[in-house]
Amino acid sequence: MTTLYDVAAIGNAIVDVIAPASDDFLADEGLVKGSMALIDDAQATSLYSRMAAAIEASGGSAGNTVAGVASLGGRAVHIGKLGRDQLGDVFAHDMEAIGARFAGGWMQDATPTGRCLINVTPDGQRTMSTLLGAAALLGPADVDAAVIEAAKIVYLEGYLFDPDEARRAFAKAAGLARASARLIALTLSDSFMVDRHRPALKGFIDTEVDILFANEAEITSLYETDSFDAAIEAVRGRASIVAVTRGADGSVVVTDGVIHQIEASPVEKVVDTTGAGDQYAAGFLFGLARGHSLDHCGRLGSLAAAEVITHYGPRPQVSLRDLATAAGL
Amino acid sequence: MTTLYDVAAIGNAIVDVIAPASDDFLADEGLVKGSMALIDDAQATSLYSRMAAAIEASGGSAGNTVAGVASLGGRAVHIGKLGRDQLGDVFAHDMEAIGARFAGGWMQDATPTGRCLINVTPDGQRTMSTLLGAAALLGPADVDAAVIEAAKIVYLEGYLFDPDEARRAFAKAAGLARASARLIALTLSDSFMVDRHRPALKGFIDTEVDILFANEAEITSLYETDSFDAAIEAVRGRASIVAVTRGADGSVVVTDGVIHQIEASPVEKVVDTTGAGDQYAAGFLFGLARGHSLDHCGRLGSLAAAEVITHYGPRPQVSLRDLATAAGL
Repeated sequence: MTTLYDVAAIGNAIVDVIAPASDDFLADEGLVKGSMALIDDAQATSLYSRMAAAIEASGGSAGNTVAGVASLGGRAVHIGKLGRDQLGDVFAHDMEAIGARFAGGWMQDATPTGRCLINVTPDGQRTMSTLLGAAALLGPADVDAAVIEAAKIVYLEGYLFDPDEARRAFAKAAGLARASARLIALTLSDSFMVDRHRPALKGFIDTEVDILFANEAEITSLYETDSFDAAIEAVRGRASIVAVTRGADGSVVVTDGVIHQIEASPVEKVVDTTGAGDQYAAGFLFGLARGHSLDHCGRLGSLAAAEVITHYGPRPQVSLRDLATAAGL
Repeated sequence: MTTLYDVAAIGNAIVDVIAPASDDFLADEGLVKGSMALIDDAQATSLYSRMAAAIEASGGSAGNTVAGVASLGGRAVHIGKLGRDQLGDVFAHDMEAIGARFAGGWMQDATPTGRCLINVTPDGQRTMSTLLGAAALLGPADVDAAVIEAAKIVYLEGYLFDPDEARRAFAKAAGLARASARLIALTLSDSFMVDRHRPALKGFIDTEVDILFANEAEITSLYETDSFDAAIEAVRGRASIVAVTRGADGSVVVTDGVIHQIEASPVEKVVDTTGAGDQYAAGFLFGLARGHSLDHCGRLGSLAAAEVITHYGPRPQVSLRDLATAAGL
């Protein structure tokens, strides 16, 4: 079958609400810096009422990755669930506007589009409080088999392990991808999510996942160790390719027993790390879909991540394709 | 009576949808660069579908001015009309978050909050297409007499000359302000708006306005001349204070027959001129409310305008009070 897409990404369709915040504010609100916490309506109303003036921009981990793939010149599609409201329109518009596509489902009732309240501290770290809304109601019916079958890589956002229906959508997508001999990629998304679903995640990785993305906190949480090296030893061979990001220390790509060290791309000033991992995945997956070496894939990931942390907002503001060309990638 | 506010601003409560665009895009869409055009639902849907990925941020001319006054340490309040929807919540939240207040009305029906589709070209100019929505339905009942009476200066956004009910809200506010011996300020907002309402505007300025803000295009449109000097000659004495902005050439403040030339504050790179006039008004009005000289007021206006044009978005991103202190103002 001909493939139409480099990447089909399944994740929470989320609009970000991004505001500057102080470390004291995080402490006062009981927020753990750098984490993602799920919040309910009442918590969202309360937190939002105390946050600074914000900008709204399409986000969601997988959505950001789709934007990165599109910015690199790739063909990407997002599968998630949106509310029939203004933020839902914003998310779908932004997908089309970047040359990608929203191919997920829309609520039939008044459940609002999910949003992520992001407090960015002066050190550029983002602390996320997510009201899932419609995103949590993604189910198998929202996954279009034809879309999955038409994608070289199906990319799954680990956050979707939280809602039950979304995990079923996940399983459906994985089954379809497997049946069509597509690659399955998973990102662990968040160390607290890993903690909540450790056994299920391990089983899913061992049986279904070809390409695993994680950061240091997530991979050490998965294998319940404080040692990065021990975690790498533990994950080795569990997926064909494992890419672990380490912030300014670059990334480590493990495959067939070989460990590749990839340097981070230099940046002048880190403004907002929101979306760094998502963009790393975008560069890596685009490289893989286009048949490049793992080193090349890792360097594309570093390049994409470096762009997004120099400004507010989780998606590229300039053409990543142009940046990659300029960098000889 | 004690005044609670430096400025009470009446204007269109609008959320901006800001995206980069090329000059070719403006031409293809039939948009006049630098202008503000009113559009209907169908036009908004059509234009938005072709715009690039955008960010959403609270805007509206008077709203931006309120944000500037608050950033300078002043007490300001906004009177407009919002829909009971997500963008309405965003606008009201952002007002509170900057230490100001939304004191206008909310729709009882499903009319959506107004939005302004802003296409920013590489030269930093913004071209605005506004769907007024709820903002157009601001009426006298939304103007709280106690708020007007508690403000040193009532600031009116010229855009409100377009909808009939808003003009009646205007007239009510002007009457209340006059009765309480408050100052009345008006901004002309847009040269096409001036063209649509020239006689009414002239009459309003002659009878009600103490402080008039305009840019070059607006003041020459008002007096139907190509000559800036002729326009200044024509407006002289029609309001106690007339402040006309001239972009990089600074501004001219006319009072009692004396013309003050105010220099623009230098900026390294103009990114997005959205909100420049609004911030000039903020600096000027704050200075006036705090009893400073007109030169001082003009320099505060230049300082506030210079900050906002160095980044995307129509409101200050750093404390204008700190900037003013650093500049010795």
